[in-house]
Amino acid sequence: MNMKKGFVLLLIIIAFHARAQTIVADSPDGKIKLSVDITSSGEATYALYYKTKPVVISSSLGFELKEPAVSLRQFSLVKTDKTTYNQVWKPAWGEYSSIRDQHNQLILSLKDKSGSDMLMNVIFRVFNEGVGFRYEFPAQNKLTHFVIADESSTFHLTGDHKTFWIPGDYDTNEFTYNTTKLSEIDASSSKMSQEIHAKTFFDKNAVQTPLMMKTAEGLYINIHEAALSNYPAMNLVIDKASNTLKCHLVPDAVGNKAYLQTPAKTPWRTIIVSDKATEIIAANRMILNLNEPSKIQNTSWIKPQKMVGVWWEMHVGRSSWDYAGGQVGSQQTTRVPHGATTANVKRYIDFAVKHGIDGVLVEGWNTGWEDWFGKWKENVFDFVTPYPDYDVKELSRYAKLKGVRIIMHHETSGAVTNYERWMDTAYRFMKNHGMNSVKTGYVGRIIPRGEHHDGQWMVNHYNYVANKTSRYGIMVDMHESVRLTGMHRTYPNWLASEAARGNEFNAWSSGNPPEHETILPFTRLMGGPMDYTPGIFQIKMNVYDPNKKEQVHTTLAKQLALYITMYSPLQMAADLPENYEKHIDAFQFIKDVAVDWDDTKVLSAEPGDYLMIARKTRGKSSWFIGAITDEQARMISASLAFLDRGKTYVATLYRDADDADWEKNPHAYMIEKFLVDGATVLNLKLAPGGGTAISIMPADTNNSKGLKKYQ
Amino acid sequence: MNMKKGFVLLLIIIAFHARAQTIVADSPDGKIKLSVDITSSGEATYALYYKTKPVVISSSLGFELKEPAVSLRQFSLVKTDKTTYNQVWKPAWGEYSSIRDQHNQLILSLKDKSGSDMLMNVIFRVFNEGVGFRYEFPAQNKLTHFVIADESSTFHLTGDHKTFWIPGDYDTNEFTYNTTKLSEIDASSSKMSQEIHAKTFFDKNAVQTPLMMKTAEGLYINIHEAALSNYPAMNLVIDKASNTLKCHLVPDAVGNKAYLQTPAKTPWRTIIVSDKATEIIAANRMILNLNEPSKIQNTSWIKPQKMVGVWWEMHVGRSSWDYAGGQVGSQQTTRVPHGATTANVKRYIDFAVKHGIDGVLVEGWNTGWEDWFGKWKENVFDFVTPYPDYDVKELSRYAKLKGVRIIMHHETSGAVTNYERWMDTAYRFMKNHGMNSVKTGYVGRIIPRGEHHDGQWMVNHYNYVANKTSRYGIMVDMHESVRLTGMHRTYPNWLASEAARGNEFNAWSSGNPPEHETILPFTRLMGGPMDYTPGIFQIKMNVYDPNKKEQVHTTLAKQLALYITMYSPLQMAADLPENYEKHIDAFQFIKDVAVDWDDTKVLSAEPGDYLMIARKTRGKSSWFIGAITDEQARMISASLAFLDRGKTYVATLYRDADDADWEKNPHAYMIEKFLVDGATVLNLKLAPGGGTAISIMPADTNNSKGLKKYQ
Repeated sequence: MNMKKGFVLLLIIIAFHARAQTIVADSPDGKIKLSVDITSSGEATYALYYKTKPVVISSSLGFELKEPAVSLRQFSLVKTDKTTYNQVWKPAWGEYSSIRDQHNQLILSLKDKSGSDMLMNVIFRVFNEGVGFRYEFPAQNKLTHFVIADESSTFHLTGDHKTFWIPGDYDTNEFTYNTTKLSEIDASSSKMSQEIHAKTFFDKNAVQTPLMMKTAEGLYINIHEAALSNYPAMNLVIDKASNTLKCHLVPDAVGNKAYLQTPAKTPWRTIIVSDKATEIIAANRMILNLNEPSKIQNTSWIKPQKMVGVWWEMHVGRSSWDYAGGQVGSQQTTRVPHGATTANVKRYIDFAVKHGIDGVLVEGWNTGWEDWFGKWKENVFDFVTPYPDYDVKELSRYAKLKGVRIIMHHETSGAVTNYERWMDTAYRFMKNHGMNSVKTGYVGRIIPRGEHHDGQWMVNHYNYVANKTSRYGIMVDMHESVRLTGMHRTYPNWLASEAARGNEFNAWSSGNPPEHETILPFTRLMGGPMDYTPGIFQIKMNVYDPNKKEQVHTTLAKQLALYITMYSPLQMAADLPENYEKHIDAFQFIKDVAVDWDDTKVLSAEPGDYLMIARKTRGKSSWFIGAITDEQARMISASLAFLDRGKTYVATLYRDADDADWEKNPHAYMIEKFLVDGATVLNLKLAPGGGTAISIMPADTNNSKGLKKYQ
Repeated sequence: MNMKKGFVLLLIIIAFHARAQTIVADSPDGKIKLSVDITSSGEATYALYYKTKPVVISSSLGFELKEPAVSLRQFSLVKTDKTTYNQVWKPAWGEYSSIRDQHNQLILSLKDKSGSDMLMNVIFRVFNEGVGFRYEFPAQNKLTHFVIADESSTFHLTGDHKTFWIPGDYDTNEFTYNTTKLSEIDASSSKMSQEIHAKTFFDKNAVQTPLMMKTAEGLYINIHEAALSNYPAMNLVIDKASNTLKCHLVPDAVGNKAYLQTPAKTPWRTIIVSDKATEIIAANRMILNLNEPSKIQNTSWIKPQKMVGVWWEMHVGRSSWDYAGGQVGSQQTTRVPHGATTANVKRYIDFAVKHGIDGVLVEGWNTGWEDWFGKWKENVFDFVTPYPDYDVKELSRYAKLKGVRIIMHHETSGAVTNYERWMDTAYRFMKNHGMNSVKTGYVGRIIPRGEHHDGQWMVNHYNYVANKTSRYGIMVDMHESVRLTGMHRTYPNWLASEAARGNEFNAWSSGNPPEHETILPFTRLMGGPMDYTPGIFQIKMNVYDPNKKEQVHTTLAKQLALYITMYSPLQMAADLPENYEKHIDAFQFIKDVAVDWDDTKVLSAEPGDYLMIARKTRGKSSWFIGAITDEQARMISASLAFLDRGKTYVATLYRDADDADWEKNPHAYMIEKFLVDGATVLNLKLAPGGGTAISIMPADTNNSKGLKKYQ
């Protein structure tokens, strides 16, 4: 072979190897298209289209590893695998009795070209609702243990979208939402709540997921993650010049992101897209579909439930968490009585029994509350030692006698090492006293010191708690935990988390603006149920102290609607029994409303503005509807076509009175009953900051007497 | 009053207030004098004198606090308290059956002059052997929770002393010793062992305690600490210009030193001084006296003991820790059989029974050893799952039948969070299988990541282990733990720690030079017993593999002497049974030697050169003597005047043969028997790297037949 021929051949070989490669995959309905490119230099990028419109363009995939120090950014494509999947599965509880998981899967098997020869796969699943992708590091000779310095995933958007965001943070998500263009994001000047104790700001261009956006063309885009396990949570940092969001993982105490061992896989990065806002909320099923099936074989002991609790009275300053009487939610300095006394808890038990509430949460029952807040102190609580005025045995006896469950409270004060030492003892204590649900709390800076609420170590802890409680037959509700990513599919005893700004902020801070609950279902709730604690009937806090200016930023009727719009299998009737007694007709809705569902219909929605959802009670023919608005009064309409054809129902509307207003007249509500059927179209008038809650029961001779048809 | 008179009065007032104050305290025997000065600016300093000679001059006291940010360096003296103390107490086990705690105490109550008005006490205890001082922060309105940024304590020495030191480090103390002048300390260029996995160098001028020094005038000075609890360990950083050692506390993951809450107290800083080296070793009782009495009421279950174990065979590469056969102490790559098999452990049990050894340590019995070393991996071991070839039940049965205890091994791999999760389960598992002693290990970087072996969090962990094991009736031996500070007085179930460079290094590294064991009693052992694992009879490792060049750097006879010179209530006969069978006459000493003592006499000593100690068996009339030398051959003499007057004893000398030499002829030993009494003066010839072990039993007609008098 002469030189010239050899050179030509070489060129051909280079051209062949350097040719950019494009692999595409569509959603089952063909509306969503994924395109993955391996450029001539080996860079792997992906793009996403919705009805042919670009949603995410040329976005990066890859990693920087710290140990071994390898940059995984240039790859050769070893092979591709495409499979289809279409199965229905049944969650232990939820918004739907069954969920279809239908997607097309594309696996890219990549090999590092930079010299390490490490193997990495990227798995894409294309659903009708959007796409999920994760990285997988197969078992291989070239890589066993490794430390991630940075995940290079980006989301390159097509414009300067309207965005509903909270600041990126390593430790908290209890912020109110900002609504700005992407280019206007400024986490440093945002509504960074001063009421949050443990927060770790790191970048003014950083935001958290689930991140909700809307394009100028009316496309809704939601970015989050699914199946967060053995990995830190993802924040997103925006490059405003290119409208590109880059993954920013929460670091550990020494600045590393994740410690992995092959075979390893990351959480899924999810992009949900639709031209209908209602479909975004319904698409939270895509995140569930990306999680592993239940690890709990027998889930019969896991029960969606309603609770009351010795809790809101501390937030409003009526009683204290601590025995000394100083520890309250509000800013007051006067001493108040201890809340968790035997007598007071019996009062709640009696109330629960009377109204068919399943559980009574008791906070501040155990020693330690005098000296914990903000102290970064390791050994505060032991989770088994009651205050002298709290008779655990007597209350266990009384609750059992009455058929009510006391719900345990484990405030860890962020001292997770201490909690882990006590866990077995604490769970045995619960079981010995007839308790099978626990609310955990992580208020304050984390111990191990230097770790963050949302880092890999804590993510592992939350999953460890879910797993360990499941083995004790205990359901768990985590506060101040990492945001949810659908892990409740895998651990259905993990009923809910807080992990966002809950109703409690209304008791002692600037509170949550009226739009707050119209955004949460598009953000925090995409990952799973939130223990928001709705149902506050005493809207104005000045009833507790004339000097208080705090209030809930909704009408009373909207508080009822939240039981539907804020999905959770654990719902609190959060207000004081005496406040419910004052509005016992409205309380009927809380008594009636279900906490587990066969079906869910998102009837009307616009993030930041309004939301209307209908849900069918699991195993029954009754439906419940919640409709809410932001600070704007508005009419909201919806057809009840989902009702059984030819069947008549009695609808009870709990609505804002005509002169209701969240600020000026929040307690004004009306209760009306009508006959409805599948042909009915509801036209609801929502007050500023208001809402409507509706129960729809099959009509019978008893409940329909003298009722008119709705029109 | 005219201006001039006023000015004079003002001067008088200033002079009165600014007058330096000096408070002194003497030791009970008057030889030691402590002088504390509060200078006119409020600086508190102390000085120490021995027989009127200055030992420590004008040295600092104080703190830098981080939260609240206060510099505690200038004080006003609120009051002084002086008390005397003279009591005898009885340790559960030890070198002495009773210990006198006689000291004069001086408490300085100080108040910060910089504006905070914080109260801080310094407590000095002046013993005949030296001084201990600690800081105390009483409960006060001005200070509750606080974070220590730096402890300002210094030790200002009077010259450029000869010093026996190992490098300062946050994670390890497994170094060989350096002997240099203070001015020549260079931790960066020192013998920083490459064989230690987790080490954290931080300052080339840093050394660890116990620090042993000798002045040009022949004064011996030892600096250490006592009662290390809820505080990090102290390193010392030298300012060579002034011969001043400054306290450097081990930081936590975020760089803080300690988190305290009033009332709080630090460990004691100890300075022991004498013009006799022998008295330094005997003065380890001062450190015990500074610790709290036993927290364990009933100590009858705590037994000093001897053990053999499936352990050295892994170090020499005969068998492996892991089931896969790759995990051995030596550098070899060939696969070897798994050590902890049912059959092999039975072999050790049989050997133990035959020779009256109490326990059999088994390492590598549980799953995880294939994948742990150097990985910084959290979930490796569960401490309850045996390898398939290790039948826990059968071995429990067999050991019980034979009257031997199996000793549990818990290698945590440094993943302390994981160990703490498993602890209760693991200790229950032990008790269920008849085990009441555990050896723990902390090889590798600590998890919580960023924490160090010697930081406050880990110090709390070791004490937590000691406390928790005590509640299960379990004795504990900690490896890779923080150096000891006499805490075994408080937790007598804490039999020993490693916390220095043990005999194991001789199996697979450059090893421990012949002087090593002549220094350890002046350094590491000042704080408490070390599990050094003496008794290696097969000195040269080439018997296991002709390519091995490693060896123990002593003669065989010196290995026997270590059972006396290296005090521990837990002594291992560390070599393989087959090696003992080859020298069964020499093994008789290990069978005979006691592990608990009524009295201890340090007969002759010079750090780095030689050491000779005699000990009387607890509750018996027998004595044992160990004499060792460094690489120099030498004669060492000692009177046996401590023997009962008028009584005759049979002394069995296990000595170096005349041509013995640690390097050239280490296995050459002689065993001789003589009659001795209180008038006997021993003249022992020690080979290079050699030693002599002597058992002294009361003579009777059986054991003295035909024996000559020693001369």
